Amino acid sequence: VTTSPDIALGFDVGGTKVLAVAIDRAGSVLYEERVPTPREYEPVPGEATADAIDAMMAKALVEVQRDVADVVVGVGLPGIMSREGRVVFAANLPAANGAQIGDILRARHEGLRVVCENDADCGAVGEHELGAAQGRDNFIMVTLGTGIGGAIYLDGELRRGANGFAGEFGHVVVNVNGPRCPCGQSGCWERYASGAGLARMTHEAAAAGLLPELVKHRGGAANVRGEDVTAAALAGSNEAVAVVHDVAWWLARGLGNLATILDFDYVVIGGGLVEVASILIPRAQELMPSMVLGGAARPPFAIVPARNGERAGALGAGLVAFERLS
Amino acid sequence: VTTSPDIALGFDVGGTKVLAVAIDRAGSVLYEERVPTPREYEPVPGEATADAIDAMMAKALVEVQRDVADVVVGVGLPGIMSREGRVVFAANLPAANGAQIGDILRARHEGLRVVCENDADCGAVGEHELGAAQGRDNFIMVTLGTGIGGAIYLDGELRRGANGFAGEFGHVVVNVNGPRCPCGQSGCWERYASGAGLARMTHEAAAAGLLPELVKHRGGAANVRGEDVTAAALAGSNEAVAVVHDVAWWLARGLGNLATILDFDYVVIGGGLVEVASILIPRAQELMPSMVLGGAARPPFAIVPARNGERAGALGAGLVAFERLS
Repeated sequence: VTTSPDIALGFDVGGTKVLAVAIDRAGSVLYEERVPTPREYEPVPGEATADAIDAMMAKALVEVQRDVADVVVGVGLPGIMSREGRVVFAANLPAANGAQIGDILRARHEGLRVVCENDADCGAVGEHELGAAQGRDNFIMVTLGTGIGGAIYLDGELRRGANGFAGEFGHVVVNVNGPRCPCGQSGCWERYASGAGLARMTHEAAAAGLLPELVKHRGGAANVRGEDVTAAALAGSNEAVAVVHDVAWWLARGLGNLATILDFDYVVIGGGLVEVASILIPRAQELMPSMVLGGAARPPFAIVPARNGERAGALGAGLVAFERLS
Repeated sequence: VTTSPDIALGFDVGGTKVLAVAIDRAGSVLYEERVPTPREYEPVPGEATADAIDAMMAKALVEVQRDVADVVVGVGLPGIMSREGRVVFAANLPAANGAQIGDILRARHEGLRVVCENDADCGAVGEHELGAAQGRDNFIMVTLGTGIGGAIYLDGELRRGANGFAGEFGHVVVNVNGPRCPCGQSGCWERYASGAGLARMTHEAAAAGLLPELVKHRGGAANVRGEDVTAAALAGSNEAVAVVHDVAWWLARGLGNLATILDFDYVVIGGGLVEVASILIPRAQELMPSMVLGGAARPPFAIVPARNGERAGALGAGLVAFERLS
């Protein structure tokens, strides 16, 4: 057993896909893989997720030429996590509710060192140590994936709250009469400013005749997906940009609420929607002053994409593993 | 000049009234007075507010038999305050926007030691040092007055944010299609779970024929005020309790959002609505699990009235003055 491992495996388990990376101590990504998130409900919560991690881990270990006992492993999970790494509640990963995925993996591999942490907390650690938030004392990380995750730094430290559950920005209700959320509430922020929100707004826009080019291209309104809109928006399609601007309005709405509460001076955006950051962020930035208390009187704050991009969560999970397990 | 003053004057400037207290170092209230908040718009922002404080200060000094240079003075103000004590933006005290009330008072009284601070931050310091939140590391203070103020303790410290503006819970938008707020946004939490919210719900309930006893008693729907509802509710009137329960629903809605973000384990409620705490709080507590992410899975948190009651802000302002000026 290597006591000071030189390689960490980081996993980012999202509502849609699982991303794995192998990193060295400098944070360089040596290998990566992604697979769809398993959807099965197992008798033992978290088994399907653990299976997926297991398979990816085996491939990664071959690639980096290490044994399981030679590396440390960090797993970022989308939900409220106890300080001991148990999934207390994951709206977008219901099969893992209650799971102690670290225990499942340790039971399978003797000598495995693994830590489970909230995905956005992983992302924030990664951005604070090696990304866009270096040297920032009061910032939030917001991951716009299938849902929305979040993490809070105040006065220089990650703030995890009384139980370790802080930063679940996606389930702040911004519209009490809004659409039902898998979490049981209605009008949660992540019904709007997320991949799922983009998908819904895309369907609505297509059905309302607002995306004629894409509907024609995809052969029907029902076939147009969020990814089509982001790709078309990046290619300059006005009809697609309009839908991304709708998402940006909701992004600003939620960020304004958070700034009114937390008074950060910096926002790092991660998650899949980062690919359309060049359209999303300038629009949200423009709307910001009208979306935060005393907006005109307070200093503006910067909104920047995660420097680690879509890998922010997986990379951060690896860094958390280095930090806590070696 | 006494270098270690034994008496502090604390002021709590609200949207409706100004409360002044004189306290000793143990926090005992030696004297108190309240006057309506001046409504005038002055050429110099904050002059009218400073005049009111001035007049109350003169009376208090006579009562406690001290000269102005012998005491320290703390002023709690309802709005976002710079770390230097300037009112950056106060939705419920527009006449004071931009004011440095400390400077105005110091210019009038040689030797005056005065500090201005956000009202809810004052209240939280008071409750943490001498009230309901003693020994609590992760709690919020929520003041339900004309508007809603707030303060955040995480990991044992008051968290003021990058600029000192943190904790403006009242202007978190919970209903994007809700009523217009003086702050410029729509559907802010304080349009609902505040004195102003109670007043609006009272008018709506009276107009809709839901408060027949009170309407009869007051001689018309237009005459029924929020205070009539709280008094009648405390006296056991079912029609009045129903309106307070509506306010409690919104209180729970906002607290659920805040818990989802901050993961505190304790809430201290201050402000005028504290008088109806015996009805408001149990109802909000009952609704809480459905209003916070993973409510059934997470440990419940206590909601308690400020031990310093309606005086929490003024007492806290006095304690802040002792803490920072002596």
